[in-house]
Amino acid sequence: MRRIALIVVSVTVTAVAGAAAYMESASGQSNGDAAPIYGVKLPEGYRDWRLISVKRLTGKQLTGSGKELKQLRAELGNDLAIKAYRDGTLPFPDGAIIAALHWDEDSSDSDNQALAAGFPGLGLESTFAGSAVNAQFMVKDSKKYAASGGWGFADFTKGKPGDEALHAKCFPCHAPAKDRDYVFTRYAPTPGTE
Amino acid sequence: MRRIALIVVSVTVTAVAGAAAYMESASGQSNGDAAPIYGVKLPEGYRDWRLISVKRLTGKQLTGSGKELKQLRAELGNDLAIKAYRDGTLPFPDGAIIAALHWDEDSSDSDNQALAAGFPGLGLESTFAGSAVNAQFMVKDSKKYAASGGWGFADFTKGKPGDEALHAKCFPCHAPAKDRDYVFTRYAPTPGTE
Repeated sequence: MRRIALIVVSVTVTAVAGAAAYMESASGQSNGDAAPIYGVKLPEGYRDWRLISVKRLTGKQLTGSGKELKQLRAELGNDLAIKAYRDGTLPFPDGAIIAALHWDEDSSDSDNQALAAGFPGLGLESTFAGSAVNAQFMVKDSKKYAASGGWGFADFTKGKPGDEALHAKCFPCHAPAKDRDYVFTRYAPTPGTE
Repeated sequence: MRRIALIVVSVTVTAVAGAAAYMESASGQSNGDAAPIYGVKLPEGYRDWRLISVKRLTGKQLTGSGKELKQLRAELGNDLAIKAYRDGTLPFPDGAIIAALHWDEDSSDSDNQALAAGFPGLGLESTFAGSAVNAQFMVKDSKKYAASGGWGFADFTKGKPGDEALHAKCFPCHAPAKDRDYVFTRYAPTPGTE
């Protein structure tokens, strides 16, 4: 069921400092562009990783955009990350990857009409993941990324990495979560069972 | 990595009409209580199923609760459901199961302080999946559940099914989505790639 992707070790020469060395040893990563600073490429199959938690981000009007920011988000983990979360292992082991998938928050009049008909008087309104925005990744490699808490950071939109200025903000912004190995997101409980 | 669960075919005698026949053929379901009307039990391993989409539900004050409803939600699918979504297969094939995991929406002052420090002036605020509320399931069996569009419905909170009155609302409430095989949730695109 999972997409089988041909792993091709890229020999593309890149102008992004530091990326080339990492790309040579790339495994489980797509044959696309590498993010600046950390050289992280889009991991294969991250859309199918298991769920860590769900989040929402809101904000005031953003530069260059006429609307307020409203995003629904999913945090997914590869097998090593999920196991570390469940076992309470800190720091995360090398190879752990956490993916944050971000969508515009959208709604549907017909969905909300169905809710109003089914549950009258409760004022229920639903929103859902609409257009894809971007995805961000934290890749654990305690040696390669020793200068940033053992994590490499990456941001991608439609297959293309964000710029160096954006990536330079990742680690300092995560510093307040140092006691959780720089990871803000906690593993969500299991509704229905817990 | 996935939890291996012993599948025990339950021979529990139940007073819920229609549940006994289904329980005899149960597979991949926990050895717990069955939901009324449809006899669906908690599926094994649903916390690890792949992500369909993310949702949010809000509402006015609810009976018996002093606060407004704010939930973050994840829709997960078993392999058959995910394949059907990706292939655009309608109706969903027998055996497909869709799980909706519901959490109270929670926030953290320290998380928001980190966002404010990292992105000053944007007014960013984050929320995340807090306490588990309940999980709901749609189980496709076109013969067994012919009277309800081929779907059996179930609601569980801390391992216990909701009451019959709640389950009686499931199918009529999903009727407006008849042209999508009674499923409201659409498969979310892949941020980072799409």
